[in-house]
Amino acid sequence: MGERSDWVMGIDLGGTKISCGVMDPGGKIALSRTIQSPSQDQELMVEALISLIRDMLDTSVKASLYPKAIGIGAAGFILQPEGIVLESPNIHWTQVELKRVVSDAIGLPVLVDNDANVAALGEKFAGICNGVDDFVYLTLGTGIGGGICIGGEIYRGHRGTAAEIGHMIVDPDGPMCGCGRRGCLEALASGTALEREAARLALKYPDSVLNYSRQEGTESIIGEAVAEAALAGDRAALEAFSYVSHYLGIAIVSLIHIFDPQLVVLGGGMARSGRLILDGVREVVQARGIPSCTEGTEVVLSSLGTDAGIIGAAVYAWEGIKASE
Amino acid sequence: MGERSDWVMGIDLGGTKISCGVMDPGGKIALSRTIQSPSQDQELMVEALISLIRDMLDTSVKASLYPKAIGIGAAGFILQPEGIVLESPNIHWTQVELKRVVSDAIGLPVLVDNDANVAALGEKFAGICNGVDDFVYLTLGTGIGGGICIGGEIYRGHRGTAAEIGHMIVDPDGPMCGCGRRGCLEALASGTALEREAARLALKYPDSVLNYSRQEGTESIIGEAVAEAALAGDRAALEAFSYVSHYLGIAIVSLIHIFDPQLVVLGGGMARSGRLILDGVREVVQARGIPSCTEGTEVVLSSLGTDAGIIGAAVYAWEGIKASE
Repeated sequence: MGERSDWVMGIDLGGTKISCGVMDPGGKIALSRTIQSPSQDQELMVEALISLIRDMLDTSVKASLYPKAIGIGAAGFILQPEGIVLESPNIHWTQVELKRVVSDAIGLPVLVDNDANVAALGEKFAGICNGVDDFVYLTLGTGIGGGICIGGEIYRGHRGTAAEIGHMIVDPDGPMCGCGRRGCLEALASGTALEREAARLALKYPDSVLNYSRQEGTESIIGEAVAEAALAGDRAALEAFSYVSHYLGIAIVSLIHIFDPQLVVLGGGMARSGRLILDGVREVVQARGIPSCTEGTEVVLSSLGTDAGIIGAAVYAWEGIKASE
Repeated sequence: MGERSDWVMGIDLGGTKISCGVMDPGGKIALSRTIQSPSQDQELMVEALISLIRDMLDTSVKASLYPKAIGIGAAGFILQPEGIVLESPNIHWTQVELKRVVSDAIGLPVLVDNDANVAALGEKFAGICNGVDDFVYLTLGTGIGGGICIGGEIYRGHRGTAAEIGHMIVDPDGPMCGCGRRGCLEALASGTALEREAARLALKYPDSVLNYSRQEGTESIIGEAVAEAALAGDRAALEAFSYVSHYLGIAIVSLIHIFDPQLVVLGGGMARSGRLILDGVREVVQARGIPSCTEGTEVVLSSLGTDAGIIGAAVYAWEGIKASE
């Protein structure tokens, strides 16, 4: 994982926000900042990112901290080792040479990887996967990302695009996905899918509190409102969680049969719903998995939550220092 | 892969037959024999296996060949490194301490692994995967097995049961599988599924030649007859191949999104149908995969065919020699 004697910067570049943290050699985040991401425009997004990095470097210098490398976890399919974002269903950009552009602008070594890969690295470094060599990590948010750790190393595939767990086809005749294809896990079990199902179920149950949670002027209901309603026992909200947990469970059965991992870890914003997701997933794994295969695997919640991204990206930056020496 | 200066024996233990081969230090099979497997009875199966090994050792000695270790690839979920068959949907046995039992009976080092894992090893040693470090291998037969090669090594998971690709859930509401669960790839795209669909489609198309191919006294149609009819343009047979290719393609899209492999290799008896399977699979990968992810992967047919099993098991036996030294 590279040298750990330097300060580094880690960035989590997602569909709705960009988070940035500066990490000390001991692995603690000393400074951090989050901004909304202008995700619909590729150039604005890169500008916002570079400007956030410059601001954070200024702040760091004033505090006598000198990050020596930058790690970026970006939502999308990343070509390695070039660090080119080939495509990103939730950020609407294509063929962005992120590593080169940021490193040219900032003048520090930059490493770019998929956001879920670096979040998995974060969980391994400082979270629930510490000391665990074989695990599968899922970020549940706007989309669904995956990180796979095999024998203690993040598995990236031969070009860098591995672990696109959100685009496993879980129901061949299922709903359309942001990637333009049908039946992906992301279309069935992401935060976006939860919100879509909640809106549909609110119409089915006119007495559901979700009908009072619609965002003004729109038909949409945000995930937090669904979670709150579910905790209060609202039938429509509970059914929406049961829908996403079902498909998430189906995909996790396949992942356990494929990987025989020690852990399957649920992270990302939606994992904050905790047992609303976890209980349903565990039931499906119990009911649909082959006991000889599933009995060695535990399905758990991430312990770092959404911080896994910046921590992992910072840890990944240490690799950048090693590479530049 | 162990020492390659010794003669070794490789065994492929499947749902319908047991194949055994003796391999020279150069990697060539010098002697081989195949028997039908009494797969419905656990004890008879183990007896048949041990008796086959003894016969082959006798024959070897008469030819002045002295195998120093035995590698076995067995259909089923195998606990590693103990070499215990936990369960095998297509052989109907549970908790067989295969490694200990065979090694006690024969007195040579024995290594046991999943049949598809060793077949993948065979393809890497002497087949289409030679020189390829990241690939996914599928055996298409009575059931569907999987072997995953990552960074040049067969991936077995943390207990040994990884790569059960046949038990990915591909259609959550699909047909029942031999494993007792619903919608597994094996229930949708194995030789057994092809035969089931062919029988169903023959009823739909009364003029199909498949209606004259039913096995005497039964409703069943064997896979070879379906392939023959399809090559002759029979509509029912072509639709049966299109059904299995569709689901196989769906699973392979997921596998490419998960692994970003250089190759996906189709092996096992059903891969003899060649383009009847391959063309349909490639079409689905093209139509349903994300180009940024799939453009780096080729889907190909195995080059060793059903020999991959004994070759890979023999190669695996070299590990047994290394371990016993």
